[in-house]
Amino acid sequence: MRTSHRSPTLDDLRDDDLRRRVQADLDAKTKPLGSLGRLETLALQLALIQRRRRPVLEQPQVVVFAADHGIAARGVSAYPAEVTRQMVHNMLEGGAAVSVLARQHGLAITVADCGVAADFEPQPRLRVCKVAGAEHGSADASRGPALTAGQCAQAIGHGRTLLKSLPGNVLLLGEMGIANTSPAALLMARLTGEPLRACVGRGTGLGDAALAHKLSVLHGALQLHAQALAPLAALAALGGLEIATMVGSVLQAAWEHRVIVVDGFITTAAVAAAAALEPLVLQRCVFSHRSGEHGHARWLQHLGAQPLLDLGLRLGEGSGAVLTWPLLESACRLLAEMASFDSAGVSTRSA
Amino acid sequence: MRTSHRSPTLDDLRDDDLRRRVQADLDAKTKPLGSLGRLETLALQLALIQRRRRPVLEQPQVVVFAADHGIAARGVSAYPAEVTRQMVHNMLEGGAAVSVLARQHGLAITVADCGVAADFEPQPRLRVCKVAGAEHGSADASRGPALTAGQCAQAIGHGRTLLKSLPGNVLLLGEMGIANTSPAALLMARLTGEPLRACVGRGTGLGDAALAHKLSVLHGALQLHAQALAPLAALAALGGLEIATMVGSVLQAAWEHRVIVVDGFITTAAVAAAAALEPLVLQRCVFSHRSGEHGHARWLQHLGAQPLLDLGLRLGEGSGAVLTWPLLESACRLLAEMASFDSAGVSTRSA
Repeated sequence: MRTSHRSPTLDDLRDDDLRRRVQADLDAKTKPLGSLGRLETLALQLALIQRRRRPVLEQPQVVVFAADHGIAARGVSAYPAEVTRQMVHNMLEGGAAVSVLARQHGLAITVADCGVAADFEPQPRLRVCKVAGAEHGSADASRGPALTAGQCAQAIGHGRTLLKSLPGNVLLLGEMGIANTSPAALLMARLTGEPLRACVGRGTGLGDAALAHKLSVLHGALQLHAQALAPLAALAALGGLEIATMVGSVLQAAWEHRVIVVDGFITTAAVAAAAALEPLVLQRCVFSHRSGEHGHARWLQHLGAQPLLDLGLRLGEGSGAVLTWPLLESACRLLAEMASFDSAGVSTRSA
Repeated sequence: MRTSHRSPTLDDLRDDDLRRRVQADLDAKTKPLGSLGRLETLALQLALIQRRRRPVLEQPQVVVFAADHGIAARGVSAYPAEVTRQMVHNMLEGGAAVSVLARQHGLAITVADCGVAADFEPQPRLRVCKVAGAEHGSADASRGPALTAGQCAQAIGHGRTLLKSLPGNVLLLGEMGIANTSPAALLMARLTGEPLRACVGRGTGLGDAALAHKLSVLHGALQLHAQALAPLAALAALGGLEIATMVGSVLQAAWEHRVIVVDGFITTAAVAAAAALEPLVLQRCVFSHRSGEHGHARWLQHLGAQPLLDLGLRLGEGSGAVLTWPLLESACRLLAEMASFDSAGVSTRSA
């Protein structure tokens, strides 16, 4: 991400002024003070991201970043690796959960092939973002680096380019990749310093024995890459292609003042890695939900994130982000369309 | 509510069969088992309410039950009583929060004048449901019964009639009535046996001194009506006109197998009173959110209710119910439109 040349001091003043104006607008609406709860802080955040008193959400884009992972061969997932490819087809054909939900809300959806172990026929909704030497997935992070530094940089660049080519001012993050809770858990351990057992969960539904095996494999991977401490080094050594590509899109979206709607555990990994590179990223992020995946709640705490939903979702794909979409629209509409005490001739509080 | 003449045993068997079929349908979808969390139990509940494998939500109706309360004269609210009338106008003109949200989701909205201290000009969205002798509000429950038994029965009848006249198979509950957290808190104390201090909250935003005053007034009211123990007797002595009318609509909606979307503290009072008369009511209820009003979380626990949202809302009007609406649609669409492992050619779990 380019270094910002703006003056933080002047911008902070501008933000404070905008914050005061929007808060005053919210307080003048025909409702008890603060009674719209989290929707009020959401409206305020959207205004601050867009730097306008009346935020407007335009042409929201769901992007599902998909890739395969060498570490899947170690038996860390309940599903076989071929499911990544099959689910990409399912998404393109409209049968996946995220497809159904995006259709419900009229959201455009793009699937980015960041390194799926397959070569897809060209399709309007599919973007090919394969990385040289990792066209069919990352290497096994438990045996060596998942990506070389060059591959990681290329994936981030692809993510930036992809994002720039998409219209609109909202990015809803989704992902697909069998075994991708493994690189996400490794990144959580490395970026937060939490013990690995606090970061590793059942993913798509591991039993107790398989979970213990996953923990042991990931423990080895973390030790193998004990020197990969800087965010970019950790991302290359531990992370997957869809996560690295997402990091690029997130950095670019943040730079462009787009609203970034974060989904579950994997997309949180991308956002956390991006924020380790550029902390301002978090100001652009709406965290859609607290997922059922072990570790997600704690990671959200580390990021100071207050998710909107808590529905026990643990599907990924961007399903939680899309489910939350109507709440973002509601926040903007309430700010724009609700009457004020003044305009509606409603008496203000007496006690 | 009329007594049901169906055989519980046969129906229970039918329900078990339907539950098994819907659960099998959910489990066959292209997602890890149970990974849609609360949306899966919601889909199952909607199927059981409608007694069909593919629930369909038709012509959902938002009804805002509005009335004034004699007890408002005791200074139990932060806002003057005239705000009830003013907010009814605001709702009819589209400037209230619930109006904005209903417009966002294309939901029909009706305001029921169950006893507002005003006489409104006829309007298509307004239904007059005034009760003889209480046209402009209930009496002060801290000095005598809020309603006579006859008035309470008339309000319940109005609620039934109103509901019968509305199309569709979903009722989203809303309410408006300055001071109505007072009758709701009294009903909570009476119906649950909780101490009054666990039931009384700040409503639209009372300070500490005003809250202590409200608690003292309500304590007196509860003692005055110590004999009003049966649900209908408690509803008349303590409850307000919008609550009693809502009880009628809820009973009728439950009888007709409509989905009932419950909002916050006041609508929970109506549903709890209706459930005290007919426990099956709860099977029809989707609890939309846990509100910020003190007492609501505990009352939901008493009812065994698991709300979908927890956003610190404390506005009423039906705002939380309408915000939750897209999740109900999502649950139905996921059940109807998601591909199965079989239809999409996706491999099932290997571990």
